[in-house]
Amino acid sequence: MKKIAIGILCAVACTSAVNAQSVVKGTSTRSAVETLMRDTKPSLDLDTTMTPAQFAQWKKRMSEEMTRLMRHPNAPVAPPVMVAQAQRDGYRIEKWNSFPLPETVVPYYVLIPDGVNKNNPAPAVLCVPGFGQTKELVAGERAGNYTLEGEPDSVLRKAAMAVHFAKEGLVAVAVDNPSFGELSDNGVNDYLVTSRFLLELGWSYLGLASWQDKVILDWMKTQPEINKDRLIVCGFSLGTEPLMALGLMDDSIYAFVYNDFLCRTRERALVMNKPDANGRRGFPNSDEHLIPEFLTVFDFPDIVAALAPRPVICTEGGMDRDFKIISKAYDIAGAPEAFEYHHYAKYADPANRQYLDTLPSGLDRNEFFRLANVDSPNHYFKMEWILPWVRTLLAGDRSKK
Amino acid sequence: MKKIAIGILCAVACTSAVNAQSVVKGTSTRSAVETLMRDTKPSLDLDTTMTPAQFAQWKKRMSEEMTRLMRHPNAPVAPPVMVAQAQRDGYRIEKWNSFPLPETVVPYYVLIPDGVNKNNPAPAVLCVPGFGQTKELVAGERAGNYTLEGEPDSVLRKAAMAVHFAKEGLVAVAVDNPSFGELSDNGVNDYLVTSRFLLELGWSYLGLASWQDKVILDWMKTQPEINKDRLIVCGFSLGTEPLMALGLMDDSIYAFVYNDFLCRTRERALVMNKPDANGRRGFPNSDEHLIPEFLTVFDFPDIVAALAPRPVICTEGGMDRDFKIISKAYDIAGAPEAFEYHHYAKYADPANRQYLDTLPSGLDRNEFFRLANVDSPNHYFKMEWILPWVRTLLAGDRSKK
Repeated sequence: MKKIAIGILCAVACTSAVNAQSVVKGTSTRSAVETLMRDTKPSLDLDTTMTPAQFAQWKKRMSEEMTRLMRHPNAPVAPPVMVAQAQRDGYRIEKWNSFPLPETVVPYYVLIPDGVNKNNPAPAVLCVPGFGQTKELVAGERAGNYTLEGEPDSVLRKAAMAVHFAKEGLVAVAVDNPSFGELSDNGVNDYLVTSRFLLELGWSYLGLASWQDKVILDWMKTQPEINKDRLIVCGFSLGTEPLMALGLMDDSIYAFVYNDFLCRTRERALVMNKPDANGRRGFPNSDEHLIPEFLTVFDFPDIVAALAPRPVICTEGGMDRDFKIISKAYDIAGAPEAFEYHHYAKYADPANRQYLDTLPSGLDRNEFFRLANVDSPNHYFKMEWILPWVRTLLAGDRSKK
Repeated sequence: MKKIAIGILCAVACTSAVNAQSVVKGTSTRSAVETLMRDTKPSLDLDTTMTPAQFAQWKKRMSEEMTRLMRHPNAPVAPPVMVAQAQRDGYRIEKWNSFPLPETVVPYYVLIPDGVNKNNPAPAVLCVPGFGQTKELVAGERAGNYTLEGEPDSVLRKAAMAVHFAKEGLVAVAVDNPSFGELSDNGVNDYLVTSRFLLELGWSYLGLASWQDKVILDWMKTQPEINKDRLIVCGFSLGTEPLMALGLMDDSIYAFVYNDFLCRTRERALVMNKPDANGRRGFPNSDEHLIPEFLTVFDFPDIVAALAPRPVICTEGGMDRDFKIISKAYDIAGAPEAFEYHHYAKYADPANRQYLDTLPSGLDRNEFFRLANVDSPNHYFKMEWILPWVRTLLAGDRSKK
């Protein structure tokens, strides 16, 4: 096997010129591009035999590559402005407008527990919702009510991450993902069209999402009510992606809540290739997840591993293979206790789990989920794991007070 | 207005930090990304006031940028192999297999007019079909018959470009676009999935399509029956895209047939933004046309202009504005007669055409077509323009014989 390069960036394995015909499999372009992806191993794949010094160097490269891929603008932005506030049960909620892009406002909510102020600052958490969710849902406000007028949501939902954290004493910030909720276009969630515009410009949905979140995170560091040494980023589902991007790019984030199952996206694309009833072999997700070149550099387990030694909790399982290598990274970083993970209840008993080192090709979505220990109907914000973890994490600070 | 940069490559205009709020339009991410695209002028936009020396320098940069964006592999490929042949009425047809990627075969047809051989070589044309068309259609063979066994297509169709050229005395090569026809996946034309795989790898559908065509074009240059100084590339619709990529990257191509209407893709995305009945504002094409960063560098009229002084025929009109600047480029290059263009019959009379310098925003597809002088129901291979053009183009060579 001989290496060739696609342009300057993307290296693929190639049969040499003399024996190309002998391994020809067929004429399907779909199969050809699958082979290209299979032969393109991520350049920063985690090597668990690294020394601590090598691990530190690898983390630096992970951070540099994430910074390159996210392509954040490098100009200053206007400071956010508070536009509304209201008292809720146990906390004050404020609405702020940020200005991450020209001619555009990106609003967010800040939930400040009663008793927290500049003389008594608190840890803070940036809450990033999942696909189709809104900052109103996350902040316990009524759907579509962008003014804070009237009553909040009548029930405390599991997805109301920010409320759960505020009741725990943290300042909680709730944001929208691009194109959802208040960021939708006349009420249309057109994330695919916005993704397309961004991709045309050499940017990406995640690049924009993480940029919007970074602007707000940087603002959080300036707020006197917030202890900027105790910033947590909490992502649910789609929201775990900006979490990971910001995690690699910003050393000052203290800890991370990863509320989704963990998987290798590249592997999933390569094995979830069972033809449907029409003979069509698909792709496991849509363009809001597309970051050109991302999977040629790293995959999500590598990124979580590169957060070591900072505390991370993964709440919806995945393959033990991946948790093992992340745990090994935390060992190398000298903080084995800082990585915590939980499987779905259905797979909590080790006897119920699959233990594969590689997934077989030819899976459909359900088969993939089964082999990856994923119980997708029970995909929700797991406060039963997260709140005790937060309490333990911050217990040291509180005992010092 | 102050320039900021998205990462290292994509420059966007931005309001400065101090006045961002004053120009805020709203919270729609869709509007935000449209603004980003509007503010991102293509870096190599044609300047018709250039001197010939500046024009030559600009062409060099156009070529370098296209080479960068197409990301062709840099390894040698195995030589193509002939796998079948048959005699047809006035020409011999051969089927060849090429090997542009690992484990993959890409077949193509070669039509050699009777009397053409290594002692009597002929000009040649690479024929690239449109969306959903196949090399069989282009080569006058029966749909789905990949063996050359039995009879050819019973009628001579307009789309049978290669047959029309062979009957004109040229060696004609017919290829498939990726994921269509024999390159489909078990008969499924899954161009969106293959595009997605390629984009994940930092490549693109056009990058692959132009690479496949380049491998075949380079092979054509080695064939003794072909006069390699008289290579024409002919694209219909989707097939005009590889034509333009190869045109910038390969100075040895002699002339080009651009069989589609000419338009500025970036402008089209910016103005074709009328909400549909559901309030959704779309994007004018799908992911097989997505080349990240492409529209930040140039647009199609710029590319055609950069082919000057080589002969080009555009057969399906567009906006006179664009033809005027391309004509100016041919003036600068000292070859005003080498650029020929025709409008759709419906718009052949100048009194029937729109003459806009800029298109208004808020158009739907039909309104865009009307203002851009496009008669889409009459989108077909215009042999009535192309064959006389080819005859004139090659008349000089023939009179020398």
